[in-house]
Amino acid sequence: MKRPESVSELITELKKLPGIGQKTAERLSFFMMRRSKDQTERLAKSIMNVKEKIVLCAICHGISENETCNVCADPARASDSICVVEEPYDVFVLENMGEFRGTYHVLMGAISPLDGIGPDDLTIDALKLRIEAGGIKEVIVATNPNMEGESTAVYLARILKPMGVRVTRIARGLPVGADLEYADPVTLLKSLEGRREME
Amino acid sequence: MKRPESVSELITELKKLPGIGQKTAERLSFFMMRRSKDQTERLAKSIMNVKEKIVLCAICHGISENETCNVCADPARASDSICVVEEPYDVFVLENMGEFRGTYHVLMGAISPLDGIGPDDLTIDALKLRIEAGGIKEVIVATNPNMEGESTAVYLARILKPMGVRVTRIARGLPVGADLEYADPVTLLKSLEGRREME
Repeated sequence: MKRPESVSELITELKKLPGIGQKTAERLSFFMMRRSKDQTERLAKSIMNVKEKIVLCAICHGISENETCNVCADPARASDSICVVEEPYDVFVLENMGEFRGTYHVLMGAISPLDGIGPDDLTIDALKLRIEAGGIKEVIVATNPNMEGESTAVYLARILKPMGVRVTRIARGLPVGADLEYADPVTLLKSLEGRREME
Repeated sequence: MKRPESVSELITELKKLPGIGQKTAERLSFFMMRRSKDQTERLAKSIMNVKEKIVLCAICHGISENETCNVCADPARASDSICVVEEPYDVFVLENMGEFRGTYHVLMGAISPLDGIGPDDLTIDALKLRIEAGGIKEVIVATNPNMEGESTAVYLARILKPMGVRVTRIARGLPVGADLEYADPVTLLKSLEGRREME
């Protein structure tokens, strides 16, 4: 049977989303067909909406509906520490934790020579400008604990420390609830190196 | 941080889809923000499109863009056998196999007293009308091999056989590639009962 064109099209579009394969796309498309027109419209509209309204914050490059994001615009946030992350989504993840009271800086990626991404492709210049403007005491580098994230962290430490700020790196170690038996050697080494005196 | 309204809205809408939780919804919404406006529009449009264009086939209740679906409208399909399934999606699954040359009938569910779904809530009357119109030799019941599907199959056999058609049920047994060791007793029993002489 030739599938109805509109269904094939929707399946094709859904498959372009991360983590959605043929089966999931098919199931989602049938689900959408069965819902009320109202509900389907709401989903389609919210997809368009997010694309139309969301811009990157002029200060930190996090997502925002205004020129400056809700974190940068909040006077209650500690403006003397900047947490540097790779992607806008990472800001969400850290905010979910609800403990960090400083501001963010989104690099929009990580240094990755293999992918042709160098320091100039990231928002490092903007970060330097923020530090030059003064008032920053600490830069917490929260790039991913993988090769690209580590290279980026090392690079940032090298160029930011001479500017007179403290540059720290988030701790690597065993995740809470993990089992020593299944830990990889590199994580184990990091966890050993990062050991702390017990109280 | 208060999340931008448009992002929260999109996440809420995405979470209404089957199999999509908070994390996946967040990841999908960030993916959508990063894509070009063009790509996002295409997705939103195809979601609306499917809802506007797809109707249920007047004959078999499968999905269709016209009054009769591509299977029912195809003169090359054997019109003397009807494969009965629960959901429109099941037609897709069977068509993917590419072996069945007859037509379909979608019940739009299965008999399930616990959910308050009786025979009258399904498209059984329409199926009876198709059989009364003549020319049908066999009705293959391909409802799901679970309690609801089996009850529905038994019910269909009881009311359709007196109408002079052959009513068959798809085979239950061990899935190809499965391991005897992990088979549940009911499947094993069905597989034993359904055994066939080797050639």
